[in-house]
Amino acid sequence: MLDSMRLFPSDPAARAVSAKLYETVRDLPILSPHGHTDPAWFAKDESFPNPAALFIQPDHYIFRMLYSQGVSLESLGIPQVDGKQQADPREVWRIFARHYYLFRGTPTRLWLDYSLSTLFGLSERLNAENADDYYDTISRALQTAEFRPRALFEKFRIEVLSTTDSPLDPLEYHKAIQESGWKGRVLPTFRPDAVIDAEYAGFLENIEKLGAITGENIGTFKGYLNALRSRRAFFKSMGATATDHGHLTAMTTDLDPSTAESLYQRILSGRSVPEEQQIFQAQMLTEMAGMSVEDGLTMQLHPGSIRNHNKLLYGKFGRDKGADIPSPTEYVRNLRPLLSKYGNDTRFTFIVFTLDESTFSRELAPLAGHYPALRLGPPWWFHDSPEGMMRFRETATETAGFYNTVGFNDDTRAFLSIPSRHDVARRIDCAFLGRLVAEHRLDEEEAFQVVQDLTVNLVRKAYKL
Amino acid sequence: MLDSMRLFPSDPAARAVSAKLYETVRDLPILSPHGHTDPAWFAKDESFPNPAALFIQPDHYIFRMLYSQGVSLESLGIPQVDGKQQADPREVWRIFARHYYLFRGTPTRLWLDYSLSTLFGLSERLNAENADDYYDTISRALQTAEFRPRALFEKFRIEVLSTTDSPLDPLEYHKAIQESGWKGRVLPTFRPDAVIDAEYAGFLENIEKLGAITGENIGTFKGYLNALRSRRAFFKSMGATATDHGHLTAMTTDLDPSTAESLYQRILSGRSVPEEQQIFQAQMLTEMAGMSVEDGLTMQLHPGSIRNHNKLLYGKFGRDKGADIPSPTEYVRNLRPLLSKYGNDTRFTFIVFTLDESTFSRELAPLAGHYPALRLGPPWWFHDSPEGMMRFRETATETAGFYNTVGFNDDTRAFLSIPSRHDVARRIDCAFLGRLVAEHRLDEEEAFQVVQDLTVNLVRKAYKL
Amino acid sequence: MLDSMRLFPSDPAARAVSAKLYETVRDLPILSPHGHTDPAWFAKDESFPNPAALFIQPDHYIFRMLYSQGVSLESLGIPQVDGKQQADPREVWRIFARHYYLFRGTPTRLWLDYSLSTLFGLSERLNAENADDYYDTISRALQTAEFRPRALFEKFRIEVLSTTDSPLDPLEYHKAIQESGWKGRVLPTFRPDAVIDAEYAGFLENIEKLGAITGENIGTFKGYLNALRSRRAFFKSMGATATDHGHLTAMTTDLDPSTAESLYQRILSGRSVPEEQQIFQAQMLTEMAGMSVEDGLTMQLHPGSIRNHNKLLYGKFGRDKGADIPSPTEYVRNLRPLLSKYGNDTRFTFIVFTLDESTFSRELAPLAGHYPALRLGPPWWFHDSPEGMMRFRETATETAGFYNTVGFNDDTRAFLSIPSRHDVARRIDCAFLGRLVAEHRLDEEEAFQVVQDLTVNLVRKAYKL
Repeated sequence: MLDSMRLFPSDPAARAVSAKLYETVRDLPILSPHGHTDPAWFAKDESFPNPAALFIQPDHYIFRMLYSQGVSLESLGIPQVDGKQQADPREVWRIFARHYYLFRGTPTRLWLDYSLSTLFGLSERLNAENADDYYDTISRALQTAEFRPRALFEKFRIEVLSTTDSPLDPLEYHKAIQESGWKGRVLPTFRPDAVIDAEYAGFLENIEKLGAITGENIGTFKGYLNALRSRRAFFKSMGATATDHGHLTAMTTDLDPSTAESLYQRILSGRSVPEEQQIFQAQMLTEMAGMSVEDGLTMQLHPGSIRNHNKLLYGKFGRDKGADIPSPTEYVRNLRPLLSKYGNDTRFTFIVFTLDESTFSRELAPLAGHYPALRLGPPWWFHDSPEGMMRFRETATETAGFYNTVGFNDDTRAFLSIPSRHDVARRIDCAFLGRLVAEHRLDEEEAFQVVQDLTVNLVRKAYKL
Repeated sequence: MLDSMRLFPSDPAARAVSAKLYETVRDLPILSPHGHTDPAWFAKDESFPNPAALFIQPDHYIFRMLYSQGVSLESLGIPQVDGKQQADPREVWRIFARHYYLFRGTPTRLWLDYSLSTLFGLSERLNAENADDYYDTISRALQTAEFRPRALFEKFRIEVLSTTDSPLDPLEYHKAIQESGWKGRVLPTFRPDAVIDAEYAGFLENIEKLGAITGENIGTFKGYLNALRSRRAFFKSMGATATDHGHLTAMTTDLDPSTAESLYQRILSGRSVPEEQQIFQAQMLTEMAGMSVEDGLTMQLHPGSIRNHNKLLYGKFGRDKGADIPSPTEYVRNLRPLLSKYGNDTRFTFIVFTLDESTFSRELAPLAGHYPALRLGPPWWFHDSPEGMMRFRETATETAGFYNTVGFNDDTRAFLSIPSRHDVARRIDCAFLGRLVAEHRLDEEEAFQVVQDLTVNLVRKAYKL
Repeated sequence: MLDSMRLFPSDPAARAVSAKLYETVRDLPILSPHGHTDPAWFAKDESFPNPAALFIQPDHYIFRMLYSQGVSLESLGIPQVDGKQQADPREVWRIFARHYYLFRGTPTRLWLDYSLSTLFGLSERLNAENADDYYDTISRALQTAEFRPRALFEKFRIEVLSTTDSPLDPLEYHKAIQESGWKGRVLPTFRPDAVIDAEYAGFLENIEKLGAITGENIGTFKGYLNALRSRRAFFKSMGATATDHGHLTAMTTDLDPSTAESLYQRILSGRSVPEEQQIFQAQMLTEMAGMSVEDGLTMQLHPGSIRNHNKLLYGKFGRDKGADIPSPTEYVRNLRPLLSKYGNDTRFTFIVFTLDESTFSRELAPLAGHYPALRLGPPWWFHDSPEGMMRFRETATETAGFYNTVGFNDDTRAFLSIPSRHDVARRIDCAFLGRLVAEHRLDEEEAFQVVQDLTVNLVRKAYKL
């Protein structure tokens, strides 16, 4: 099922170079500096439940596609906000298998085939006929010791795995991992949306909690900032090397202290309007950049997703159900206040992502090819795919070069897909480099260095790993 | 002139797969569910006039290019709004032939070469020297029985051909075709712009006529909606399976009934301002979607063209003279009201097109890869070309898959170009699939199924043919 | 270091055609109708200074990349606004050599390798070890007669080289060249930003000077226009064939004379607000188009760059330091007033450029494929690169054809890079055409004609050379 030449150019000359390059990175350790796995897995090291709960129910790439073709989320056992979840896991798996053809031409298909084949030795394409056999084989495997989270972590050769965590999180699982004696590096990432985005569910209570946890007076902007500073320090003490910020836009601003204080009071009053909330978020990006200059945490910004687009579905199933849709995103004017203040600081690393590919050649590569602090995050979400990754290299490299990029993020909560995602990313980088060499735009000897840099060195440097 | 490997990748491995795939779809019947041919041709079955009237004067792809290089529309015999049209058809043809080099690298050139070669046996490239010969050969052929509309329809193996029609149209030609005993399926499509767009020429009179035809009271919004419902039912009884909507933007809205009624009264007063007219159109898209849920007509939306950009030319020659220019088009926020109301309904099929290719990966594929009702229309107008069709597959497939697309539309009023347009589309799909197979991203066996689906199955399903 | 097949497709069939095409244009003369070389070089014909001053300090492509990776502009000897510039040229060169790996995959690397190899016989890749040797070799060469500006001009086979000049410039160097007896054609280009953009440094003084030079009464709009007309005539008498306009947006407008007069008075008062200044620029584009219809100067528009994005850097180093960032640019609505007024005039040539590649297929190709006056400028600035030039052909050709484009612009102030830039452009055109031929989308015989047209004929026609 898995051809060794997959994803390389079909032209023999370019393919040969790609394959040679790939040989040198195929077995390198996995650095996963941004993702959404659950630290409890590694703290508890319990077996994963059934195949449906592992592969389908947590993966919005999968159930959004099934839903788009008329498969109900109820039938897939997606949990509802009222707590209902009624679906036999085996039946969910059968529905998935019957609809496996829908994933033709998608990265999901590549990831699944890789996982089924490499981890479970299932080398035939999943279909309605073999669904039950596959379910049984996977179920049996999941009960064995070698499929427990820590064993898989080691089998996958993961050097570092970063999770994404609320500033209110006591990081107990990270602590448990560290104290367990197990050597796997599972690092927290400071993601403060819950105490910065005034529309976030429970926002005001979250601020209260922030004050309680840190002992800072969150009644003033200064106290609020100190509370955040304090949590960043705690995260750092627990191994964090980065922060992450999910905003609707890339807007930043640089208010004078008294304006910022007044704005914070409006936010705290619970009577702020959306415009004020957006400016507050914009200001907080700049504040967070300032703290990154202080404490050295790498800063990540993920803007541009309109969340919960489908009102009916949101009402029934809640957040993160495949109904987040990208929208046009402006970076040049929006990032100017932050970049003008901190973008020239070589101590600061600011990694920016996009869901709007038209910005790579127009805005992001020119910005990253100039500001010392700025780096381009890898293709994100819908664009974490063979064509998406290739377009990224083709549109960003000529202006930003390779060295203003930061390697690959798997960004996943699907733990078993991690090796397959890194494998696709490595193959596409080799395919791109193979073409450059075959077209005599890069010396072969250099390509071997570049592919090492893309796979490990740039990741280590950008995320300070 | 026509190489059998044309449009396939030049890499031998990918080409070989493409060619094998193409063999299996080359001779499949043509399904043309969206276009602008004239039903009168098939009702009357009269000979087409001269080559200029057939190939040049109705085809804005052709005369816009000639015009852009300084050829006057007068010299091409394009009819003027004051009724003037003075040009010898043979002379028009000669001008065209002299400028044939302008079409190098364009799809028009591919379509023309195919038609000249396949239909008329003219296998040398058109040029100033052979122009008269070609004119004579085509003229003679057009007078023969096998070049009459019905004979060509059959020769082209057209299974279904949809026209585009005003709701005020009595569909007399469609009736005549049905009553003639001829078996060709020529179906109307319900295109209500003339009674929805308040800027449409004769809008208020059109509304009056709509009331008169249906016997509904168009003085109220409810009566107006019933009148539209009545015409949809009539179109459906005449074979229609779809509606089509051409709007400046993709804006939709979901007004409460009393607001909608007031807005309708403003529109009816003839004193509405552009903003009101736009909201009315936005509301009508949602109303039309509701009616599609009721009556099962597939709904098509074609937004994003700024019509009649060239004021001087519009004054002299009127609409549809090659001066319609695409503009940036937003879908995510604009479609939200309609999709939130009807997008989850699996009885509803909503096909959306774009002239803004940047939306495929950013907005349209994510939307179509989620909402059960939504499907992606094929590349439209300027993008109905080898590169445009390839970019569509490359930017949409990874997120929306193949199965949220609906096959090809030729969208043409140039009847003789229909086989060539479908041939180009089939070849490009084979070229894309050939590359996926050669890069081991899709099994060859699956590619054979996909190409059948793209060519006929998805069309039949989406348009209920 | 320079493979003869570089930049051609790696597929042997497409490569073979590309190589054959390239053979026929490789040695054609260079037409450089738009650029920023210094006419004083050719008037004085003095030796160029050291390698750093020649290759690094004037080239923002180079120092922006170094700066983005933490190399300070001070260490590169970039002059500061306070006049400071302290850096040993040899040390600057060493820094550059140490960081040469940063340019992997960028066009800068291609240009540099070509220049070092072709001009100086330096065929090993630049690195920290050979930096001093290379510095010495280049330094020695620069002192020889064959590396003086006029000798290089001839060696490069430059047929025409256009500079870019202020309307206040007396063109003394152009005059000196003409009177010197040397046959090299170095033509001025009329670039009036300094007297049209109210934010331009010294704007009001510039207007005064304009009045003084021309003897026109710049106190009225009519007098101001006459002053511009007078300078255009002077530039034309000095050989100019074109104007150039650098605006933030592509906005044009067509005000009635009295409104235009009032607006001019506001601008002249020094109290105008940014909106007024923008409308004034918009009006002036239409006025300039009208003058081009009168005097036949080809008009160029370069919109979309947000200048001096990095405030800190701008304060210390001033303009043009690699901190100009593209932003989304709208053409369809913005150009409508100008195009409606003059776009149908076949005497007028209007060349439009973009930094927003999404506009090629959506807006610019449809506009250029319709309006007789409009032509597409080649890929500009960040997009003057192998991938950028290929995307331009792929996204513009199918709608605009080849014949609404105008050949290549090197747009450079780096004189030594001119042959390498034209070589890259010729190779990419051959690569694109080679693929069209290999895919049977264009006859080989036609491709030979097209590549001649792209390299010289379309340039001569568009710029009236």
